[in-house]
Amino acid sequence: MLEELKEKVLQANLDLPKHGLITFTWGNVSAIDREKGIVAIKPSGVEYDGMTSDDIVLCDLDGNVVEGTLNPSSDLMTHLEFYKNFPDIGGVVHTHSRWATSWAQAGMDLPALGTTHADYFHGAIPCTRKMNYKEIVEDYELETGKVIVETFHEREIDPNAVPGVLVHSHGPFAWGKNAADAVHNAVVMEECAMMAFVSSQLHQGVIEEMQPVLLDKHFLRKHGANAYYGQKK
Amino acid sequence: MLEELKEKVLQANLDLPKHGLITFTWGNVSAIDREKGIVAIKPSGVEYDGMTSDDIVLCDLDGNVVEGTLNPSSDLMTHLEFYKNFPDIGGVVHTHSRWATSWAQAGMDLPALGTTHADYFHGAIPCTRKMNYKEIVEDYELETGKVIVETFHEREIDPNAVPGVLVHSHGPFAWGKNAADAVHNAVVMEECAMMAFVSSQLHQGVIEEMQPVLLDKHFLRKHGANAYYGQKK
Amino acid sequence: MLEELKEKVLQANLDLPKHGLITFTWGNVSAIDREKGIVAIKPSGVEYDGMTSDDIVLCDLDGNVVEGTLNPSSDLMTHLEFYKNFPDIGGVVHTHSRWATSWAQAGMDLPALGTTHADYFHGAIPCTRKMNYKEIVEDYELETGKVIVETFHEREIDPNAVPGVLVHSHGPFAWGKNAADAVHNAVVMEECAMMAFVSSQLHQGVIEEMQPVLLDKHFLRKHGANAYYGQKK
Amino acid sequence: MLEELKEKVLQANLDLPKHGLITFTWGNVSAIDREKGIVAIKPSGVEYDGMTSDDIVLCDLDGNVVEGTLNPSSDLMTHLEFYKNFPDIGGVVHTHSRWATSWAQAGMDLPALGTTHADYFHGAIPCTRKMNYKEIVEDYELETGKVIVETFHEREIDPNAVPGVLVHSHGPFAWGKNAADAVHNAVVMEECAMMAFVSSQLHQGVIEEMQPVLLDKHFLRKHGANAYYGQKK
Repeated sequence: MLEELKEKVLQANLDLPKHGLITFTWGNVSAIDREKGIVAIKPSGVEYDGMTSDDIVLCDLDGNVVEGTLNPSSDLMTHLEFYKNFPDIGGVVHTHSRWATSWAQAGMDLPALGTTHADYFHGAIPCTRKMNYKEIVEDYELETGKVIVETFHEREIDPNAVPGVLVHSHGPFAWGKNAADAVHNAVVMEECAMMAFVSSQLHQGVIEEMQPVLLDKHFLRKHGANAYYGQKK
Repeated sequence: MLEELKEKVLQANLDLPKHGLITFTWGNVSAIDREKGIVAIKPSGVEYDGMTSDDIVLCDLDGNVVEGTLNPSSDLMTHLEFYKNFPDIGGVVHTHSRWATSWAQAGMDLPALGTTHADYFHGAIPCTRKMNYKEIVEDYELETGKVIVETFHEREIDPNAVPGVLVHSHGPFAWGKNAADAVHNAVVMEECAMMAFVSSQLHQGVIEEMQPVLLDKHFLRKHGANAYYGQKK
Repeated sequence: MLEELKEKVLQANLDLPKHGLITFTWGNVSAIDREKGIVAIKPSGVEYDGMTSDDIVLCDLDGNVVEGTLNPSSDLMTHLEFYKNFPDIGGVVHTHSRWATSWAQAGMDLPALGTTHADYFHGAIPCTRKMNYKEIVEDYELETGKVIVETFHEREIDPNAVPGVLVHSHGPFAWGKNAADAVHNAVVMEECAMMAFVSSQLHQGVIEEMQPVLLDKHFLRKHGANAYYGQKK
Repeated sequence: MLEELKEKVLQANLDLPKHGLITFTWGNVSAIDREKGIVAIKPSGVEYDGMTSDDIVLCDLDGNVVEGTLNPSSDLMTHLEFYKNFPDIGGVVHTHSRWATSWAQAGMDLPALGTTHADYFHGAIPCTRKMNYKEIVEDYELETGKVIVETFHEREIDPNAVPGVLVHSHGPFAWGKNAADAVHNAVVMEECAMMAFVSSQLHQGVIEEMQPVLLDKHFLRKHGANAYYGQKK
């Protein structure tokens, strides 16, 4: 079932090494069929070479495998929290991409320093708080999802306007309207993470965020009702 | 019309990913036919794979499309400001290349620290001031061009001697006698931006510019009446 | 003899340039047949292009060549110290990979800053003390092995839980259950070394290690009796 | 004449882009036939694609072209100073490779921080003083060679033991027993320049050089009468 969704999830997973976002199998992409309430996700710890759409695992929103012979990604429960709490998104990606992970390890928000960032993320990409002992030892992957959702709720960030997060001491997640879009946003986040590092080092670590009006201009030039970037759809 | 110009603009656009200057479609190259007053420019938000010279859009200097079915790059009005104000140039390129953009995000001039820079840029590559609220919300792309031109006029920099600029919180533009030359200068700027970062970090962020006499020597060894680098033309 | 072992050691050596871990011939991988007490190791100073399994040298644990016409790697005696003192390991790799070597040159432990590190290394990767004059001028390669073993013994680090080390002013060694596993760990160490550099620079060089409970969680999720990452074996 | 020498110089020049040492045509390699007193060098400003051994220019030690229709590299007179003053060397290479050039732009010696450096360079790679006004405006390329030679003489550095230099505000030169060996040393210098940057940044820019005894050990393990690295010759 859901052959097209599985094929797209496979393709999005294969795009991760192509974009230099992963080493070995350190990444996973999922996508959801909202009508059926079924999530397609990469299997756990399987090599990218030779992976086929038959290896993609289908699960319901409680994490039960409904099709597939392999274990789903160990990060499955984190992905499901995204789909349950961010109703407009269709795909999620997790990587340990170098520059974004470095910011996550530093426990710092990835600040909006320029229009490259503003074209895709309407403000800083937040870094979660540290998880507490109980969250880590019990239901770790589920709690990872919960602390992400908490971050967006408590800081009143719209996940549609900031489609990415840094998990403290861990790494980035990104999302989008489908699997390919999620990977696209992950590539952008990595690029912005590299440039924000260099920019902040040029000021001895002092970070000065970009003007809000410029942030708005670039984000709204590409997103929303009055977007005028690209070709007419 | 202008098939050769369109072909050269196509080729210069395709050279951007080859030189590692762009991610996705984050770049655009244009060139001008000065006699006809027609600018050829990349279409907006179109993928590089499969782009042909038929996709290149022709516009007049007021920004009216005179040939082509796609929207021109959303940065068209910025490009036109270059052609209107810098009468000797034939090509313009805009990218979000990593190192140059990092300097732009830091709001800092790219200083001339060595002969690599001096071989192509006769002094620091300026960073514009921040744009103001009105400039950003009204005619943003046109105003971007205006603030660039203002930078060169107010600081009395010759655009033929310093064929590049950093737009504050945004990224680099470069130009040259034609599209290929503009891309060439963009590659050099990126290389110099990387090395200037490393050099300045080695001095804890304190930047000491190179000797003016060495700057002159290298620039004039390659440019102007007494150039002696390369083969006799 | 031991054709399969030699073939695997060859393959692991050829994987070093593929993963970007080495320049020229600056690396060597060995593996041991514990039953026979024979170590297969790369020959010294031989180019990777055209290397065959016949070039792999077989030695006993005293360093005597038992098969092969080429000199073994000059680091042979260091490798043998690993096999003699770390009884569970089956493969060893030495490189001068850029980021890990930079930490070794700084004489600093590679701290555990995130889950990428924790998935493979159960704590900081130690940097040895400086070797003393006598150790350097007499039996240098053997003494290099001894100072590594001393580091693990004195600091009470389990080499099965931290399968890597930085030799002061020199570079990294990594190990694993076989040659391929050793190379895998070397790739991870390099990745973690890059990210730990960036993370620490974001905090002006101040390093804050990750929470011990998160370190445990990630290491034990992949290793040991209760591991649940990947597919059932 | 000297077809073999020209072929080797061609090959060494083509190896520069292969090793990532150059952008466009920013590099040149030469080699000398000591018996005939003839130097073969890359032509000036010619693209690498399609270059043949016929394009290599032959000159005498006074800089007169004795064979070839193209202009020799504009750095010819610098190369000749090497051959005149460093009698044991057979090849010279100049590049603007990123990391080494960054140290040159900072005006800093490249310090010996680890065994990667010590395997090839018996101490810090010196950076020349700034050239003075007269040296720059008159006979610039010749004076560049002279300031390099002065650096080695005044600081009593043996060019056979330290086969590289950084020219202040400019970039690296390396040399060796022939053209290929010079390129090999240029690759090593670039690698060491990257790692020395990272190591020094880890200590907030404070550089602590490696132990002299370890420097000696590694250099002499590979060079001189008692070398034991590699295969018996």
